[in-house]
Amino acid sequence: MSDAITIALDAMGGDYAPEIVIKGALIARGRFPNLRYLIFGDERLIQPLLNRYSGLVDISTIVHTTQVVRGEDKPSVALRNSRESSMRLAIEAVSTGKASAMVSAGNTGALMAMSKIVLRTLPGIDRPAMASYFPTMKGESVMLDLGANVQYDTANLLQFALMGSVFATAVLGIRKPIIGLLNVGSEEVKGNEIVRETHAILKNIKLPGHYHGFIEGDDIAKGTVDVIVTDGFTGNIVLKSIEGTAKLISEFLKQTFRSSFLAQIGYLFARPALNTLKVRVDPRRYNGAIFLGLNGVAVKSHGSTDAIGFANAIGVAANMVIHHAIDKIKHDYELIKDSMKPALVHPAVQS
Amino acid sequence: MSDAITIALDAMGGDYAPEIVIKGALIARGRFPNLRYLIFGDERLIQPLLNRYSGLVDISTIVHTTQVVRGEDKPSVALRNSRESSMRLAIEAVSTGKASAMVSAGNTGALMAMSKIVLRTLPGIDRPAMASYFPTMKGESVMLDLGANVQYDTANLLQFALMGSVFATAVLGIRKPIIGLLNVGSEEVKGNEIVRETHAILKNIKLPGHYHGFIEGDDIAKGTVDVIVTDGFTGNIVLKSIEGTAKLISEFLKQTFRSSFLAQIGYLFARPALNTLKVRVDPRRYNGAIFLGLNGVAVKSHGSTDAIGFANAIGVAANMVIHHAIDKIKHDYELIKDSMKPALVHPAVQS
Repeated sequence: MSDAITIALDAMGGDYAPEIVIKGALIARGRFPNLRYLIFGDERLIQPLLNRYSGLVDISTIVHTTQVVRGEDKPSVALRNSRESSMRLAIEAVSTGKASAMVSAGNTGALMAMSKIVLRTLPGIDRPAMASYFPTMKGESVMLDLGANVQYDTANLLQFALMGSVFATAVLGIRKPIIGLLNVGSEEVKGNEIVRETHAILKNIKLPGHYHGFIEGDDIAKGTVDVIVTDGFTGNIVLKSIEGTAKLISEFLKQTFRSSFLAQIGYLFARPALNTLKVRVDPRRYNGAIFLGLNGVAVKSHGSTDAIGFANAIGVAANMVIHHAIDKIKHDYELIKDSMKPALVHPAVQS
Repeated sequence: MSDAITIALDAMGGDYAPEIVIKGALIARGRFPNLRYLIFGDERLIQPLLNRYSGLVDISTIVHTTQVVRGEDKPSVALRNSRESSMRLAIEAVSTGKASAMVSAGNTGALMAMSKIVLRTLPGIDRPAMASYFPTMKGESVMLDLGANVQYDTANLLQFALMGSVFATAVLGIRKPIIGLLNVGSEEVKGNEIVRETHAILKNIKLPGHYHGFIEGDDIAKGTVDVIVTDGFTGNIVLKSIEGTAKLISEFLKQTFRSSFLAQIGYLFARPALNTLKVRVDPRRYNGAIFLGLNGVAVKSHGSTDAIGFANAIGVAANMVIHHAIDKIKHDYELIKDSMKPALVHPAVQS
């Protein structure tokens, strides 16, 4: 019924490529029946996989590539030397309009560098941001920036708030997302100059969402807000700290259920319920970080995910396209760009 | 056998004062038989509590106070108006040598401001840092700064590394602690200028510990290092994010064990093992954040802890005293102060 959406896939990126890419494409197609694929990679490896799934053959086109960006390649090297790589050509398919979005499980730094060069940043966006979402007490929240930048200023944080809000609507389906600014306390005097200035502006502009105010670290898991805005240094460390803590507790629990005969019996009884919890917090369901602020959709899948995780990353890309998220960011930015100028609070220094 | 150690207690701080303070003092005394207490607060409330525990009467002196710093008082207000408060007088007992350390479960901001004014920073330490420790996959690690400062430079991070290392030896008993610098990646090119500069210096100086290099957020729970060095903005948010995640998972688990009849039976069988895990990660065992870098030991207990938690905070103070940690920081700083100068990497700007 609706128009077909073509997603470019880098079939060579990640630890289990191309198998999980192709299988993930099949799973995602089950959820989004109007998907088409443009698959970049070694056709001798990809064609036999496609042949296994009759559902994919008709809706996929292989573009044979020979170059591969390796996991250990530096972004600058990948930019220079991998112009014919599956990753680069998949991004170019988005810039030339052959595809509406691209997904890769490959080298994050290379993907960010190439996407920025090929797709370029949207008007008004100074720095793109990496965004992703995860489970909370209340549902799901998105956080950005997760490490695309380590330097930042007030304008960047304001743009992150805008982009994160549009993402929450497009991918999480939250009509009017609640936005929070991560800080060391909730009072107005807390934090460094940049977060205080950002807070002062966010209170007074009409974002495509509702600005809640400052939030603290424990508000992330509580689900106090739908969109957590922070700089890439803090965001990257916080996300990995949370993932590490979840793994630690899960490991402690495993040890606990193995620690005695009674505990083993208890585990057997509780297993179905524990499996339900496992599904609820399954990291594969939250796989797919998006590089926001570009003229096009580029999604990064975790390198070690499986087909279910990769399908979710394709889902993030598809939702961004279906909900016209890039156009919305452009549109919303135009509406509020004058009031977003930090110069309102801090007059710009004459240079 | 060994000399008596006098700890000043702010008996009026925290949600359950003075009961948990007095009961906590009794528990701590069981672990440190040479403790004496100087207890600041309302003697009409404290004396009856002391009388309950014969073990405490002989080793405790009450100093009657009438002023109390309230939880909602701003640090600046507390500094001006609470000169006769139990908190302030307990800190002054450390500065005048009547006590070797102080512990309070009261207002954190007021405690930091008063301690800094009364005890003053150690020679060579530009900014004190809040430090605390918690369980990891391998044991326990200390992290600092947890929010005493939101602005920071290379010199601060270097001093945090030194102080955290001394703390890990004194309180966690780790002879040669492994130190890590929190960053968004482990390669040398990662992070902002300050962490890169700090890294360059830490590699080349002889700390009272071993410098591991950059660590990432997930290394915290893994226990990759014993001492996690970071700025107060990141450290505060990361610590609260970790606590929030642990609470979220614990809440999810409770829901899981209640979710079906079989799960409830499973819980009954596994309960003894789960209780063991609960003890292992009991936040009360990790209660007691220390304000490092002052001429004296000031320890902050969580405001809502119980007697067991408060006893642990007293234990942190006692270990700092027993291991001469403040002298050690001074001594170690003298040894390495020349090589700690960031000017070695970035020549200081002439002003």
